[in-house]
Amino acid sequence: MTDKPGIVITGGSGRMGQMLIRTVLDSDRARLVGVVERAGHSWVGQDVGVAMGGAAVGVSVTDDALEAFSRAQAVIDFTAPEATLEFAALAAQARAVHVIGTTGMSEAQIARLEPAARHAVIVRAGNMSLGVNLLVQLTKKVAAALDEDFDIEVIEAHHHHKVDAPSGTALMLGEAAAEGRGVTLADVSDSGRDGITGARKRGDIGFSAIRGGDIVGEHDVLFAAAGERIVLRHMATDRAIFARGALKAALWGQGKDPGQYDMLDVLGL
Amino acid sequence: MTDKPGIVITGGSGRMGQMLIRTVLDSDRARLVGVVERAGHSWVGQDVGVAMGGAAVGVSVTDDALEAFSRAQAVIDFTAPEATLEFAALAAQARAVHVIGTTGMSEAQIARLEPAARHAVIVRAGNMSLGVNLLVQLTKKVAAALDEDFDIEVIEAHHHHKVDAPSGTALMLGEAAAEGRGVTLADVSDSGRDGITGARKRGDIGFSAIRGGDIVGEHDVLFAAAGERIVLRHMATDRAIFARGALKAALWGQGKDPGQYDMLDVLGL
Amino acid sequence: MTDKPGIVITGGSGRMGQMLIRTVLDSDRARLVGVVERAGHSWVGQDVGVAMGGAAVGVSVTDDALEAFSRAQAVIDFTAPEATLEFAALAAQARAVHVIGTTGMSEAQIARLEPAARHAVIVRAGNMSLGVNLLVQLTKKVAAALDEDFDIEVIEAHHHHKVDAPSGTALMLGEAAAEGRGVTLADVSDSGRDGITGARKRGDIGFSAIRGGDIVGEHDVLFAAAGERIVLRHMATDRAIFARGALKAALWGQGKDPGQYDMLDVLGL
Amino acid sequence: MTDKPGIVITGGSGRMGQMLIRTVLDSDRARLVGVVERAGHSWVGQDVGVAMGGAAVGVSVTDDALEAFSRAQAVIDFTAPEATLEFAALAAQARAVHVIGTTGMSEAQIARLEPAARHAVIVRAGNMSLGVNLLVQLTKKVAAALDEDFDIEVIEAHHHHKVDAPSGTALMLGEAAAEGRGVTLADVSDSGRDGITGARKRGDIGFSAIRGGDIVGEHDVLFAAAGERIVLRHMATDRAIFARGALKAALWGQGKDPGQYDMLDVLGL
Repeated sequence: MTDKPGIVITGGSGRMGQMLIRTVLDSDRARLVGVVERAGHSWVGQDVGVAMGGAAVGVSVTDDALEAFSRAQAVIDFTAPEATLEFAALAAQARAVHVIGTTGMSEAQIARLEPAARHAVIVRAGNMSLGVNLLVQLTKKVAAALDEDFDIEVIEAHHHHKVDAPSGTALMLGEAAAEGRGVTLADVSDSGRDGITGARKRGDIGFSAIRGGDIVGEHDVLFAAAGERIVLRHMATDRAIFARGALKAALWGQGKDPGQYDMLDVLGL
Repeated sequence: MTDKPGIVITGGSGRMGQMLIRTVLDSDRARLVGVVERAGHSWVGQDVGVAMGGAAVGVSVTDDALEAFSRAQAVIDFTAPEATLEFAALAAQARAVHVIGTTGMSEAQIARLEPAARHAVIVRAGNMSLGVNLLVQLTKKVAAALDEDFDIEVIEAHHHHKVDAPSGTALMLGEAAAEGRGVTLADVSDSGRDGITGARKRGDIGFSAIRGGDIVGEHDVLFAAAGERIVLRHMATDRAIFARGALKAALWGQGKDPGQYDMLDVLGL
Repeated sequence: MTDKPGIVITGGSGRMGQMLIRTVLDSDRARLVGVVERAGHSWVGQDVGVAMGGAAVGVSVTDDALEAFSRAQAVIDFTAPEATLEFAALAAQARAVHVIGTTGMSEAQIARLEPAARHAVIVRAGNMSLGVNLLVQLTKKVAAALDEDFDIEVIEAHHHHKVDAPSGTALMLGEAAAEGRGVTLADVSDSGRDGITGARKRGDIGFSAIRGGDIVGEHDVLFAAAGERIVLRHMATDRAIFARGALKAALWGQGKDPGQYDMLDVLGL
Repeated sequence: MTDKPGIVITGGSGRMGQMLIRTVLDSDRARLVGVVERAGHSWVGQDVGVAMGGAAVGVSVTDDALEAFSRAQAVIDFTAPEATLEFAALAAQARAVHVIGTTGMSEAQIARLEPAARHAVIVRAGNMSLGVNLLVQLTKKVAAALDEDFDIEVIEAHHHHKVDAPSGTALMLGEAAAEGRGVTLADVSDSGRDGITGARKRGDIGFSAIRGGDIVGEHDVLFAAAGERIVLRHMATDRAIFARGALKAALWGQGKDPGQYDMLDVLGL
């Protein structure tokens, strides 16, 4: 038991936080050693199992992140950009692996992770699923193999609560396609088609965003030519895959040299 | 032989025109009696079979529409709005059924068909395929059966030459969904999602337009709720279905009372 | 509170049983008044909330079905054929609505429900989701509208634990298609295509069964002709839809005349 | 003109033969120098353009294959196994590249190509499309990257005339998946699921065959795990892609060393 890495979950009361807690509790390769919430949150001081409406699990929710991190080998963090920057500094201080699933970080914010990455392992990814990261690799490879006779379109579908379009993962796939073709996505991106658009421009990479119900996340990369099409598709049907990917990253990071990594490193792709 | 209705095709040299000519020539229920092109076109005066690169078929291309129409029982017309209005007047004069597959007609232009429809049968449809017209019916019915817990999205895919988005057929499906729900499409239409859009508005009908390769035309109507989805899909893989639908309309119109009809009338849906 | 119908769940410890318990507990239109397990099961005598690993909810698990049913207005039952026959007799004795989601019942077993249905309301369906039942209706309608130029295929996908193929729902869709066409499914069913099969027989209804991962249940009804296809698709992504459908049936059955009903009655389709 | 390789098409009167003839006639990189049909066929002695119902093209159909081959740099051959073996010997004698799209050859028949391949270039493939061959590569790669938590299923759809199931291309994809996993397809293949099959066996590769309408050919390779799926899909919508691939192979083979090649060689995959 004592050999299993100890994990702290930040933002434990959120939907993704609770998913992460359950994933660590269910794992036989890691131990839950802490759950962090912001000061004043109603969960602070409670046993986290009880707070989630179940039986006690022997771990109290705390608002003292540094104390929690210092007892852990890894921190899994799907919160918000500014919170994540603070957690990065504290995790580095505690020499804990920091797995970052937080989305919406700006280039400037990402740059501010650099000092922490000099002292500790950071694994950061826009999408922690094995399947999506594999799809990114395939997209780059196929875009490189095919010429512009194949029109590339990225189509994604998400639940009706999502506020941005296209999804971060769709953009990641578009970047991979552009990279495979040796072009810059910003130069060829065609998003939000509507009205009299004129014929599609050869070489463009198009994006479509479908919203409805509780769709977890689906992404198609379409390569369409005269007479044939290739589609690379990923469907996520359970958010647990992101939690399992994050835990995998936390375990993978043990003993690695300080620095910034992504899921392609973790998955060996 | 003489009992088979005689058909004239307008705009015979275009891609759709040639498809219509072949469809009529292949049919054992109709005869090709004329092909019309505009004055000065290189095909005028030639046998249409030869003009299409094959053997002679005994029908010359003409620029005299009225003369051709007067020898026919029906005119099939996939040209352009203003040309179609002229053909409507001439077809009415000749008492020939006028099948109109021309797209992009404005409300004002459609209104100008009225005088012709007092003297002859006009069948006009944005899409002449059996499948699409059936899909329109189903969409209306399903939209009426489900409440707003089901988000409605219309997704269409077409070849890269298409200049407008969403397609006319997608809008026809959106109209059917709105009608089923008892709302006005203009009030709930959400097209061209891009950027920070905010959460999807309950009751909206969304549209996405995919463009690539030589896709003839594909339409999905998605009804997405928590935990389940219904999709009604149509795929056209051969433009011949539109030509066959038009010929079916031409035959159906024989002996009907003057007036305006659509494919739902023809198909008895 | 006292006006809300009281519900008993049978087979409460199974995956579907627990889903049903949570659905009733979360509903503000019904009350959980009992949970039944077989004599000797470790849950018997425990509070069901505690047995499920959470907080107590004030309802004990019992092995005395009749006693539980006599305190209820409805019984929801996704167990096994022989158990369901016993429960039907007891529910009739208690004059409780009996909602049956049990699958795999033979014709003979279904006939044995008749005596119970003379005294109480029975709602039985192979699939309790709104979407699937709507799809059944659409399938019948489309099959009736199209002739045999359209080949009909039913394609289903389920998780890798499923032991039978095609799924009960796929067969239900096939029956609907056959009924729409005025034929008997047994005469035209073509399942398990493999090897040198010869050309597809006109009028056949084909079935394909895909198995993998944790797919909850997906069904396509394909109508394929020359140049065009129609697909009617249902995707279930959360078993909760079956539980919600069952609860809806339990509420709908209150005050109805004794007899056997199905989800089309409940949904008014 | 004289620098362009001269091509002979065998079995010119068939559907695929005519497609090949048109593709070569339309190409500006090759010349049609001969069309072969069996002795006694009505086309023999006619100009092939006229035989196809169009204008003369200056190439007569012949039943003397060797004479035609001796004037050519390549032979494109989508006929039948025994005919192909004869053509292979004649093409080798004429030192012409022999592109073989013939399907249904047994292992023994394939072995009999060996003598010819010592003297001339043979390119043989079960499917000549760029997209399908790319899909084969991707399938192998993805199968190697993922473990058996991902269930693999190959789903294909073809027109209702097809007499065998699963398609040769589906089997080729299954072989690629098995190879990626380091197993033998025959040991894990699960085709024609029907009835009480029991739960899916871990590690199996499943096949489903859909038949309907005029579907040219569609193949999905599904990798399904808990909570996520990857799908690699190819859709052929025009047989011309197979003809274009065959012509590409004929051009690629010019100047290559004698031996047997496949489309992966041609495409540089």
